[in-house]
Amino acid sequence: MKNRPLHGLKVLEFSQYLSGPSAGLRLADLGARVIKIERPKGGDACRQLAIKNMWADESSLLFHTINRNKESFAADLKNPEDIIWIRRLIREADVVTHNFRPGVMEKVGLDYASVQAINPKIIYAEITGYGKEGPWKDKPGQDLLLQSLSGLAYTSGNADDDPVPFGIAIADILCGAHLAQGILAALIRRHKKGMGALIEVSLLESLLDFQFELLTTYYAGGEQPVRSNVNNGHPLLSAPYGIFETADGFLAIAMVPLKKLSLALLCTPLANFSQDDAFSRRDEIKQVLADFLKQQPSAVWLERLQQHDIWSMEVLNWQQMKAQEAYKVLQMEQAVRVGDKDIITTRCPIRINGERLFADKRAPRLGEQTEKIKAELVNQLI
Amino acid sequence: MKNRPLHGLKVLEFSQYLSGPSAGLRLADLGARVIKIERPKGGDACRQLAIKNMWADESSLLFHTINRNKESFAADLKNPEDIIWIRRLIREADVVTHNFRPGVMEKVGLDYASVQAINPKIIYAEITGYGKEGPWKDKPGQDLLLQSLSGLAYTSGNADDDPVPFGIAIADILCGAHLAQGILAALIRRHKKGMGALIEVSLLESLLDFQFELLTTYYAGGEQPVRSNVNNGHPLLSAPYGIFETADGFLAIAMVPLKKLSLALLCTPLANFSQDDAFSRRDEIKQVLADFLKQQPSAVWLERLQQHDIWSMEVLNWQQMKAQEAYKVLQMEQAVRVGDKDIITTRCPIRINGERLFADKRAPRLGEQTEKIKAELVNQLI
Repeated sequence: MKNRPLHGLKVLEFSQYLSGPSAGLRLADLGARVIKIERPKGGDACRQLAIKNMWADESSLLFHTINRNKESFAADLKNPEDIIWIRRLIREADVVTHNFRPGVMEKVGLDYASVQAINPKIIYAEITGYGKEGPWKDKPGQDLLLQSLSGLAYTSGNADDDPVPFGIAIADILCGAHLAQGILAALIRRHKKGMGALIEVSLLESLLDFQFELLTTYYAGGEQPVRSNVNNGHPLLSAPYGIFETADGFLAIAMVPLKKLSLALLCTPLANFSQDDAFSRRDEIKQVLADFLKQQPSAVWLERLQQHDIWSMEVLNWQQMKAQEAYKVLQMEQAVRVGDKDIITTRCPIRINGERLFADKRAPRLGEQTEKIKAELVNQLI
Repeated sequence: MKNRPLHGLKVLEFSQYLSGPSAGLRLADLGARVIKIERPKGGDACRQLAIKNMWADESSLLFHTINRNKESFAADLKNPEDIIWIRRLIREADVVTHNFRPGVMEKVGLDYASVQAINPKIIYAEITGYGKEGPWKDKPGQDLLLQSLSGLAYTSGNADDDPVPFGIAIADILCGAHLAQGILAALIRRHKKGMGALIEVSLLESLLDFQFELLTTYYAGGEQPVRSNVNNGHPLLSAPYGIFETADGFLAIAMVPLKKLSLALLCTPLANFSQDDAFSRRDEIKQVLADFLKQQPSAVWLERLQQHDIWSMEVLNWQQMKAQEAYKVLQMEQAVRVGDKDIITTRCPIRINGERLFADKRAPRLGEQTEKIKAELVNQLI
């Protein structure tokens, strides 16, 4: 796509692993030039974090997924010569991101005050686990730990389950999204007023924000919400909200008045409940429904439900999803060439003027652009 | 906070429920003026969506949570007189958002082409469930249904569980975050080049993006990941990653080499496994650990683990979390006055120049600012 909205902006990414780099990936796909600043020995630790032993070009497939469409500049932040280069880079940059624990950037003289002194208009954006004060500030900012501390592990699963974490790194992803929002908003202000900014987000605050509906309800009532005993979908929602087994699979049913549901399914036992029971007798109602829906295959139920405009859909795994025409028309996949093979990954989910934002530049090798970038900086000085 | 980054920007929010309005809330907290355009009869349907029968000032507590810091303009989009006012508003606006099903805005003459004809520099941002083409385009764009279709329900819970949805409206929240990112990026381009833009996101594409690490691994191997049989934390991660029961509660343990874990816990049975077993014998290892950790209270284990710098933390519910000093120092709560009582809710998770973005303006009554906004428009014409 031509005219990507962030074309011309330069981002220095000191971030590692997922949270900060996911923000960098979004900015890159929106058109920014994102340069990873990596330790000469090993680089971003994510390069070595292989899942299922999948590698490409000496880095983990995971690293490639998060860091395509970026460049890499190798620098030892404890080496004064390298720091001179970094200071030059900062002078030309628009954005700096990092996700080190509090104190690390201070130690190498790259905290906000120091960076601002080099480039007053810089947008300096940092991620911590728990903010920069308080008793947890030096604790590891790891996704599962944050899910566990923030109450989130008590929202999924059923009432008699142990706490159930989300099976995806939700804190990292949300916090990366918030960092990108803060950076973009600050760039807008800089265009208007010429001001730089310090943007701070934390994994914990991002997970609290994520739970804002549930927390506001909790603050008002003081009662811990109780997960449904039967097929929990959302701890605060009435029956039938949840996923149900059928004779040959599973289907999801969202909000629907019980009477309407009873008529659509021809499920007479449901008629014993009034709409006022939908929350207070949630588990009984869902059990009736669970027993009933096991009797026929999903297609039978879905036809009845969708004929009555009831919010219901089947439950698919990835294999089933990939086979759907509705998936294919999205064109969500893109191939990224690494060495002599293609990695298939997803594109940016945002479309602009009807165009999808594909960007198939592979992730850089460690330090791949160091010399090129140094030459650019030297040329600018002449 | 003074100098909020989006100060001076005007957003018209035709969106309802959660996805679009959550983007509007973020833009408002960052300084934009967000005007909800609502049907004169009933307004945003979320006003009537009460959870646990909690209300404030005639709208649901849920509505108040999502729509604080906004204004409300009542307009019937099928009434030509009201449409004249809307066209005037569009002339003065910077951003329009909506999350109607495909075709609805076309019918009332407020699709992108029509709005662009009124204001060529507008950023027109829309959310759909499944995009605007393909066999699912007219299906209801509801969060649980999207979780079910996108494979996400097979990432949480254990291998022998039925599909387990996330207990929070993850598709709505992520898609709202992506919408805000697209809007902000387009505003940056408009500042530089004077161009408006159409921004499109969908709940389905947002959930695919969310699963980008897992999907890239799936595309490469073609194997559906299998959730752990024991205390699943993430379907692709090795033992011990997960939440474990102790004698008096639960604790989370993230990535750690097995040998290090065995030494820290003084857990000799773990020494029977090599690091190469960590994924292939994941369930056996986790079962050994699960049995072992039940023998002592969390505090005993956490002391040993954290002494060895192992990524572990306790699992808290909201009541326990709220009591922590580490929660209190965040100052994540704010009071919003509605009538004669305070609603306690969360603030924006982004900090700018060290300041937290509090914004305690309550959600508007339906049409509360209609006359005031009309008067402003008339004054601008004179």
